[in-house]
Amino acid sequence: MSMIVDRRELDFVLFEFLGVERLLGHPRFQAYDRAAIQQMLDVGQKIAEQKFLPIAAEVDANEPVIVDGRIKVPAGVGAALSDYAQAGFFALPFAEDIGGLQAPWFLHTVITGMFSCANTAVSNYAFLTVAAANLLNAFGSDALRQTFLRPMLEGRWFGTMCLSEPQAGSSLGDITTTATEGADGLYRIRGSKMWISGGDQEISENIVHMVLAKIPGGPAGTKGISLFLVPKRRVNPDGTAGASNNIALAGLNHKMGQRGTTNCLLNFGEEGECLGFLIGERHRGIEYMFHMMNEARIGVGHASTMAALGGFLHSAEYARTRTQGRRPDQKNQASPQVPIVEHADIRRMLLAQKAATEGAQALCLYCATLVDELATLENGEGKEWKRSLLGLLTPVVKSWPSEHCLEANKWAIQILGGYGYTRDFPLERFYRDNRLNHIHEGTFGIQGMDLLGRKVAGDRGETLERFAGTMRETVAAALAVERLEPDARQLGDCLDALTQTTRALLACEDPLLRLANATIYLDAFGHIVVGWIWLQQALAAADALARNDLSDADRSFYEGKIVTARYFSRYELPHSITRLALCQSLETTCLDAPVEIFGA
Amino acid sequence: MSMIVDRRELDFVLFEFLGVERLLGHPRFQAYDRAAIQQMLDVGQKIAEQKFLPIAAEVDANEPVIVDGRIKVPAGVGAALSDYAQAGFFALPFAEDIGGLQAPWFLHTVITGMFSCANTAVSNYAFLTVAAANLLNAFGSDALRQTFLRPMLEGRWFGTMCLSEPQAGSSLGDITTTATEGADGLYRIRGSKMWISGGDQEISENIVHMVLAKIPGGPAGTKGISLFLVPKRRVNPDGTAGASNNIALAGLNHKMGQRGTTNCLLNFGEEGECLGFLIGERHRGIEYMFHMMNEARIGVGHASTMAALGGFLHSAEYARTRTQGRRPDQKNQASPQVPIVEHADIRRMLLAQKAATEGAQALCLYCATLVDELATLENGEGKEWKRSLLGLLTPVVKSWPSEHCLEANKWAIQILGGYGYTRDFPLERFYRDNRLNHIHEGTFGIQGMDLLGRKVAGDRGETLERFAGTMRETVAAALAVERLEPDARQLGDCLDALTQTTRALLACEDPLLRLANATIYLDAFGHIVVGWIWLQQALAAADALARNDLSDADRSFYEGKIVTARYFSRYELPHSITRLALCQSLETTCLDAPVEIFGA
Repeated sequence: MSMIVDRRELDFVLFEFLGVERLLGHPRFQAYDRAAIQQMLDVGQKIAEQKFLPIAAEVDANEPVIVDGRIKVPAGVGAALSDYAQAGFFALPFAEDIGGLQAPWFLHTVITGMFSCANTAVSNYAFLTVAAANLLNAFGSDALRQTFLRPMLEGRWFGTMCLSEPQAGSSLGDITTTATEGADGLYRIRGSKMWISGGDQEISENIVHMVLAKIPGGPAGTKGISLFLVPKRRVNPDGTAGASNNIALAGLNHKMGQRGTTNCLLNFGEEGECLGFLIGERHRGIEYMFHMMNEARIGVGHASTMAALGGFLHSAEYARTRTQGRRPDQKNQASPQVPIVEHADIRRMLLAQKAATEGAQALCLYCATLVDELATLENGEGKEWKRSLLGLLTPVVKSWPSEHCLEANKWAIQILGGYGYTRDFPLERFYRDNRLNHIHEGTFGIQGMDLLGRKVAGDRGETLERFAGTMRETVAAALAVERLEPDARQLGDCLDALTQTTRALLACEDPLLRLANATIYLDAFGHIVVGWIWLQQALAAADALARNDLSDADRSFYEGKIVTARYFSRYELPHSITRLALCQSLETTCLDAPVEIFGA
Repeated sequence: MSMIVDRRELDFVLFEFLGVERLLGHPRFQAYDRAAIQQMLDVGQKIAEQKFLPIAAEVDANEPVIVDGRIKVPAGVGAALSDYAQAGFFALPFAEDIGGLQAPWFLHTVITGMFSCANTAVSNYAFLTVAAANLLNAFGSDALRQTFLRPMLEGRWFGTMCLSEPQAGSSLGDITTTATEGADGLYRIRGSKMWISGGDQEISENIVHMVLAKIPGGPAGTKGISLFLVPKRRVNPDGTAGASNNIALAGLNHKMGQRGTTNCLLNFGEEGECLGFLIGERHRGIEYMFHMMNEARIGVGHASTMAALGGFLHSAEYARTRTQGRRPDQKNQASPQVPIVEHADIRRMLLAQKAATEGAQALCLYCATLVDELATLENGEGKEWKRSLLGLLTPVVKSWPSEHCLEANKWAIQILGGYGYTRDFPLERFYRDNRLNHIHEGTFGIQGMDLLGRKVAGDRGETLERFAGTMRETVAAALAVERLEPDARQLGDCLDALTQTTRALLACEDPLLRLANATIYLDAFGHIVVGWIWLQQALAAADALARNDLSDADRSFYEGKIVTARYFSRYELPHSITRLALCQSLETTCLDAPVEIFGA
């Protein structure tokens, strides 16, 4: 059994739950049918298992170091990424006319997910390159695209996102990196960028940085930010990487997880002219960045989910094979020990992981299909609705896995006992790797403000109300299925609470008060969305179970869906009502807490 | 400000909340008054800050390795433990007539806590030595005590607890290590012991292992287990450590946290005779071990709490000084950034940490005073009641901090953003160190079975009901204080739910069904106990605030207690009612989940 992917589960999610064949009918995706998708998954799984997985522990134990001013990483990293590039995976989601494979975003997500589960630290280099290429492709001039896109899609040049600075992390409006235009139309970049994943390395021939900077004289705050393409090496007339562009590696951050991904402090233009190319128009950098944020945030949520998947697969195998103790009704101490999966509490921890992992994976892939719909739908109300829905779900798809799939990793460790926290198993690495995702691409708190302050309050709750209507349709369908009726009622109660709470929050005029518990609201909303995902999966499973041609394995598979949906509705969903009650009461304890109580 | 202890908080807990002066009146503790306690805390804080704290990061980064068959640890470790020994801290809780300092257990807990916060990996060696000495002192013969106790109390010989084996972790009845009596009355020990913290090292002159083993021919299961003292080196006639006792170091486990504490696989008697001394009577090993379990479990809970304290102190300082972003009502992007403690969600994460850390610390110290009461009370009903109460609270004091103080560490990292997960700050180390505590001294699941199966069902809920009565007295007192009335009502609601749920569980005859959600029950009960702790602290604070001679600092301190009690009652306690409702319904989803749904 694979430890990086559950292909049976993927088949269910893609073809039974999401019905992606509907999308494949579009001319854009004409190269992809179900067989082609399976074939690509086979190729991806093989490279991930043979090249990425075997070096994951080594890469973790030997973090990048600077030797003679150059960054050294374990030898297998370059070879693994080279195989990844050979398979065309850097080019997956891009249009054919620019050298891409024009695959749907959901397929790109699924394939990169296998690599993330196998070795998130190494797969990050590809993730960041695609993110940067995506931005360049959307807003860069033809000239820029011609020069930089192809080597990125071929995996010869990697990409990065340079947003944060030492004094400006979550608050981008306060960046101070400057871009001054020269007579040649190019910009001279000066400033420091912090936390740059993949910010320097010697694996690729060149690095294409997407840099936020301010053109002197522009507006204050985020409105004065522009976006620049800044290569590590300047480009020779023949298109190859040439002389240094004066980006100095000022330091490496040493992290608890994802240790194989370099994380750098970079100084731009400190030792000589650092040239940058303006992308799109001046002062629209934040707008461009936000435009691509949905995909990036799905990516972080999905990476978090994949860490949980790894933990779930390993701990489930361990629970099935490790014998320890007896059940409470076995009094004979001389009887043989039972596999620990026989203990109710071990099953609780497996169900908690299964609920989080499969729920989050289905959510991520659902959001990925929304990206595909936006790429294929004609303009109009239908497309606008999908755009609004994706916007509403983006803070959830980023933050729910970051919180609850990290929790899943905690339970995976717990199932293994002492073995769980040793390096003999990858569980503790998943847990360490995953802790970063709660901060990457916007913290939990930032996502809460985005959901409640921007997405919900921004249209007076309209998108949310319409989405709640969609969820109520699922509730209505499930109420008609006897086995699912209690779960449907539970989700219905949650939706009532969500509607009431949202109304109370929108009626509050004071933004401080309205947003005081935005993170709790986000967490509750996330649970309800995942509860909806589970109820839909249970409906699909109940349908399947009504057939009488199922194999034993398939029967267990669908039974597992119904049991896990029940777990989620009984053990998890009631807590979202508890959380919403707090939000609805406009609780001010945190808002009003005097600063002095936290020390001198 | 110290980063390893909050002395103002300790003063409050010991003298205002617990009223330990009452205990100090007992002849056993006549050497200790408030001034003497402060003096010992001063000494401890100084050694912890000057010798333990500075090497914490180095010890973490350079885990023990085997060089030429001997274990090497960073050089500062031996010196730090030597200073610790010089100050008499190994001897703290032991009677004067055996060379101890005869300090109350609560003082021992407070002092070791500072070392645990400063450097848990190094302080573990002392923790384990005291645990082993405690066991030897309680059940060993005079001859054994004379030979082994003094060098342990002087910190020259360290101790360990050897329970687990590769095939028997939580299920001790299944150990296979044997002890065969020779003509000399000594036992020959043979077998492997796994996960032995401090199992081998070259810091101390000798190691005194407390080993569980089976004498061939005895009863099956736990009833056939006896306890042996097995030294690493045999003892010369002059009392010094002599020849090897044939305990082979078969391997070191590499852990995600507490990395400076060696964790060993030991083979006893593999290469020659390994001699052991029977402690107490045959076949009573488990009984003896359980007798000392209360103290050990308080110790693990307290270590978990101290990791959270470290995270809280660091993240509070960071939140007060780091500027980032603006409040939602500040629209002017050119206005200066605010310290992040101004953001409501940062305060939420600080309050969550403060509630967990200070609540858990007060709980641990309350349980420690119960240990002191058992040591000083005359036999009788009053003493029996304290014994039952301590037994009831032991699974809580072990598991509540392991879960919620780990969660606190998660929020500490979150407050620092990217800095939180780098090694530039100790936050990520606290988080890694703390993850082990959920498994040490019995997992969460084991503690749940202990609480519900043994402690609550064992006396048909009698101790619990009496304890609930004590908690209701606090509720009644707080109902009379206007500011605390909502918090009192909340705790009262929780107690009602606890009583009803417990009755429903006790009425259930099927042990499988009754115990199916024991972990959830434990978690809910733990929340209620900590809620009771907080309500008592709020009452003490309200009393203090009624005085008009308070300094501003004191006023803020007490205000902080009331605000945090409110946080706990509003944000946390309602979830315990949600959890109890699940338990009361005798939910069977986890119990009934078919094994097959977790894979082939």
